[in-house]
Amino acid sequence: MALPPTPATDDASNPKIKNTVDVRESRRLIENLIKDGVDGIAVNGTLGEMATLTEHEWQTFAKTVVETVKDNRPDLPLFVGATTLNTRDTLRRIEYLVDELKHYGVFLGRPMWCEMSPEAIVGYYKSIVDVYPEISIMLYDNPEAFKGPIPTKVYKTLAEKVPQIVAAKYIALTPKFYEDLRAVGSNIKLLPLEVDWLPAYLYSKDVNGTWSSSAACGPEPVIALRNAIFKNDLESAIWLTNRIRWTYETFLAFRDFREFSRYNIPIEKVRFNECGYVKAGPARPPYDYIPPEYEELTKESGRRWRILVKEVNEKGLTHNFSLKL
Amino acid sequence: MALPPTPATDDASNPKIKNTVDVRESRRLIENLIKDGVDGIAVNGTLGEMATLTEHEWQTFAKTVVETVKDNRPDLPLFVGATTLNTRDTLRRIEYLVDELKHYGVFLGRPMWCEMSPEAIVGYYKSIVDVYPEISIMLYDNPEAFKGPIPTKVYKTLAEKVPQIVAAKYIALTPKFYEDLRAVGSNIKLLPLEVDWLPAYLYSKDVNGTWSSSAACGPEPVIALRNAIFKNDLESAIWLTNRIRWTYETFLAFRDFREFSRYNIPIEKVRFNECGYVKAGPARPPYDYIPPEYEELTKESGRRWRILVKEVNEKGLTHNFSLKL
Amino acid sequence: MALPPTPATDDASNPKIKNTVDVRESRRLIENLIKDGVDGIAVNGTLGEMATLTEHEWQTFAKTVVETVKDNRPDLPLFVGATTLNTRDTLRRIEYLVDELKHYGVFLGRPMWCEMSPEAIVGYYKSIVDVYPEISIMLYDNPEAFKGPIPTKVYKTLAEKVPQIVAAKYIALTPKFYEDLRAVGSNIKLLPLEVDWLPAYLYSKDVNGTWSSSAACGPEPVIALRNAIFKNDLESAIWLTNRIRWTYETFLAFRDFREFSRYNIPIEKVRFNECGYVKAGPARPPYDYIPPEYEELTKESGRRWRILVKEVNEKGLTHNFSLKL
Amino acid sequence: MALPPTPATDDASNPKIKNTVDVRESRRLIENLIKDGVDGIAVNGTLGEMATLTEHEWQTFAKTVVETVKDNRPDLPLFVGATTLNTRDTLRRIEYLVDELKHYGVFLGRPMWCEMSPEAIVGYYKSIVDVYPEISIMLYDNPEAFKGPIPTKVYKTLAEKVPQIVAAKYIALTPKFYEDLRAVGSNIKLLPLEVDWLPAYLYSKDVNGTWSSSAACGPEPVIALRNAIFKNDLESAIWLTNRIRWTYETFLAFRDFREFSRYNIPIEKVRFNECGYVKAGPARPPYDYIPPEYEELTKESGRRWRILVKEVNEKGLTHNFSLKL
Repeated sequence: MALPPTPATDDASNPKIKNTVDVRESRRLIENLIKDGVDGIAVNGTLGEMATLTEHEWQTFAKTVVETVKDNRPDLPLFVGATTLNTRDTLRRIEYLVDELKHYGVFLGRPMWCEMSPEAIVGYYKSIVDVYPEISIMLYDNPEAFKGPIPTKVYKTLAEKVPQIVAAKYIALTPKFYEDLRAVGSNIKLLPLEVDWLPAYLYSKDVNGTWSSSAACGPEPVIALRNAIFKNDLESAIWLTNRIRWTYETFLAFRDFREFSRYNIPIEKVRFNECGYVKAGPARPPYDYIPPEYEELTKESGRRWRILVKEVNEKGLTHNFSLKL
Repeated sequence: MALPPTPATDDASNPKIKNTVDVRESRRLIENLIKDGVDGIAVNGTLGEMATLTEHEWQTFAKTVVETVKDNRPDLPLFVGATTLNTRDTLRRIEYLVDELKHYGVFLGRPMWCEMSPEAIVGYYKSIVDVYPEISIMLYDNPEAFKGPIPTKVYKTLAEKVPQIVAAKYIALTPKFYEDLRAVGSNIKLLPLEVDWLPAYLYSKDVNGTWSSSAACGPEPVIALRNAIFKNDLESAIWLTNRIRWTYETFLAFRDFREFSRYNIPIEKVRFNECGYVKAGPARPPYDYIPPEYEELTKESGRRWRILVKEVNEKGLTHNFSLKL
Repeated sequence: MALPPTPATDDASNPKIKNTVDVRESRRLIENLIKDGVDGIAVNGTLGEMATLTEHEWQTFAKTVVETVKDNRPDLPLFVGATTLNTRDTLRRIEYLVDELKHYGVFLGRPMWCEMSPEAIVGYYKSIVDVYPEISIMLYDNPEAFKGPIPTKVYKTLAEKVPQIVAAKYIALTPKFYEDLRAVGSNIKLLPLEVDWLPAYLYSKDVNGTWSSSAACGPEPVIALRNAIFKNDLESAIWLTNRIRWTYETFLAFRDFREFSRYNIPIEKVRFNECGYVKAGPARPPYDYIPPEYEELTKESGRRWRILVKEVNEKGLTHNFSLKL
Repeated sequence: MALPPTPATDDASNPKIKNTVDVRESRRLIENLIKDGVDGIAVNGTLGEMATLTEHEWQTFAKTVVETVKDNRPDLPLFVGATTLNTRDTLRRIEYLVDELKHYGVFLGRPMWCEMSPEAIVGYYKSIVDVYPEISIMLYDNPEAFKGPIPTKVYKTLAEKVPQIVAAKYIALTPKFYEDLRAVGSNIKLLPLEVDWLPAYLYSKDVNGTWSSSAACGPEPVIALRNAIFKNDLESAIWLTNRIRWTYETFLAFRDFREFSRYNIPIEKVRFNECGYVKAGPARPPYDYIPPEYEELTKESGRRWRILVKEVNEKGLTHNFSLKL
């Protein structure tokens, strides 16, 4: 599951500009991800700038992505972000997806002005599917963004009571991951980050998916990892996991996740732009500042990913291997 | 500075309802606050449900409040909330206030999907006044809502560089309050909660204002406190402070502020409704759940405020005493 | 209640030195505090280096202090620290106080290797008084040192069940202070820091005591504050509170309490040494490092206290006013 | 590296009892661990009750362990805990180990009354080896016990400047683990928990050791895991890791590490006693309370370990395979 950015025009950091979605580049990005073999796409999480797009821009981008997928691989799982500050604004976003675009995959975090209580989280997701029972939801579980993780007991309730929830983007391979895995059973697919996928998969073959924003830096290493895991080529899977980890050595998310969470949007933009697979453009306000020392470390991480893509291609690890989830 | 709620229709907890602003009650509330002598009003912070109003509802309420103030006391300081998830959405809210309503007082927190860095906070407020230099801003400094307090050095920079910022709603009388007070000098008026006002004022007569959501439970005790403080009637000021504190004994905000922050909106609604000064109505989704034990404690706090209003009226502490800031 | 340091010999930072208590200076310090009119003394909390004295040194200092008090003002409330890593080591310290020194006042925090549960805290204090029912305990409630505050319900239980607990050193004037005040009733005297005393006293005349480590920088300002408060001289009390706060403007404890807690011991030593009322000597290992920027800020705080002592003396605010608690 | 408890006499929860070390059981435990093939032992960390043993008891236990190892396998790496509240008390403990017992392996956390600054941590370990350069140190890095992890830059400095530090007990396989691994190079062996060993080893064959308190529940599963890893029997290693994780499903440490840290000592005692490999006896005061619901969950975890031991024995995974580190 690739998590690409929302490509921005060159003037997107200027708060006076109203249309900052680079539609042509957005289309090109989605086409290339599909061509290069990703098995799913989720847009408009944190790095996908759900927070900083205007509603009009969000519609423009959603339309572009949905149509590009329909034109190129209509069966591809695609989840479009619809997280806002409250239930009703989110319902309006979903109304656009469903009624205007006939699209049913939603990538959904939760309101974060106030930390939501366990009861409120359950109530929120239930309210959404009460109105739109036909959608499929991929949860967005980000403890920094949404002021705490989804509690295990909430996972359990959602798995039992909200069948529309089919997957969850999960941040880190902590002991809680294993506990949540037991809580959701086979009802919700917990997706760890690609670098955590192998150990999670060794624990349970139910963990048969992963998410990756690095896929938008060039998906080849993640595709290769998928191939290696599903072919039981453990040697390649270990090698790939370790090389991906090597690219993250200078990436702030792996040094201090809380500090990363203050700069994640512009940091990811710098990394995407350094890798060159997509022209992500500048970050939108107000999350457009990045301390110079982090910028340099991030670029190094991007350069390493480029090297890894080259290594993977030279080794021929990305040969055709199409997956149906 | 009273911080009233946004009165809601009886069906406002239902996420399918689109117009939940009780316009008539909103008008009545503002009229009564003015009639009862408050010196300022700020709407649409956390308890004012900035997070859960749709843009259309927010416009309805803003228009109601602005017009009611214009009709009744046009010189009253009025700050209308405009906090959203990003700079441009906030600019669009301010555009409505300025261009449509000819209103220039803005109550402004900050985007909170990601915690903002100090540089980003400064950049954000500067961006706003670059576009609308004619507005006046009351900062909303809530460490739980916005993932951290405004750092002292940011207060210092804002005080020096953004003259449009005239005041700040400040949560608690910690040592940082005194440090921030030195940082802002006379450029930004830091407003403590009414129960903290007296000790802050004894420290510095520059702290000549306060904020109070309890004022929407009946403003008399806060008006009386203001009168006592400005007349140097220390005995009454002490008595009022202690009685206000007594009403808060069962109020969750004073027992566990973080836990309170998970339920603050429905808790405040319960308190307002119990006091009866305003019919606040139900809380809007998704922040509409309140654990039963907190509900009961909150009602007790409301009942105590009612008792205090009666005591204050019997003592004649709220005689006419009009203030020009 | 003065909280003086444990004066150290010049070589006390050297971990190879075994006897680092400056006995002569210790005696002189206690004598001067008594002569200058303090109403109580508590030794061997955090800044009193309970953590870093060897058992032998602790005995030496305890003996010196107990004897000096007996020789000079035998009725003075004196609490000697006995906090260790566990119940039995603390019992052995108390055994020394009671059996060897015939001293019954104990200043008692709690073990902190593991955070103690509410049940464990209650059990711990009960165990102590089961063995030594004749002692009087002043609680040491420091949330940073002991991994959390004493919960309100624990205060309530201790107030009801452990009559030997007569007082508590309380860190900050948060809303929890007022809640704990109600929980303990008249059974445990909660002592706020001197700069918080006036607002707490205005709330309740039961708060008729304070603690002060600054008293060992020269007790005059605190004595003067006590006099002003008990004579209802509110103007002087306000002036003194504000001037004391002024001395703290550059003191790290008032800027960032958690950061202060990493350096509090050497910081307090620097302040004492700068003020000159006591030759506190160097800090004992391993808490002997202080970043240079904090050292300079701390010295400024010390210099301000010296200025304040001079001001207080010139105003004649410390005239004879002896208090019996 | 097995981390066994300090066996306690039946009356050890009574604070009036002075000699609570069950010497006979201690000897039997160490003999059995050696006989069953562990490659190292570290005693007197948190669950080894370093905090709650009196100095005399600690000496008794240290003597017992050191002599039992000398009698049975003198080349076995053995690290004895010496963490106290300060540098000099720790030096006195090491003096006993070195001068009385001629033992040189020390398991060393750090003082925790105040959180130590990075500079203080470095200074502390340097002070220790300045006095006893002949010792070998295994670091005890427990972020809950010692108020924060050892910062990466401190690991780097210690690896470069304190050659006596040879290993570190590391809590969790976070991204920081990989960063610290790079920081220490080959100078300090970072030991993850047994359930984290396989993924860490797949990342780097330098991670060729592990720690396990479960080893004192019966070391067979951990021995089997070691054998599988070093023979490249990945299938067995994965199976063992997953089965060990299954035993932890009801173990609080894997559900909420902070909450676990409040009850870890009595919880571990319950688990050891349930497994029956050692009669660990009761927990020493003040850490002797455990909520009933945690007690039951812990017993289930112990029962599962017993089942796993049986499974491992039936599969013959623990055949002779002696290791020299």
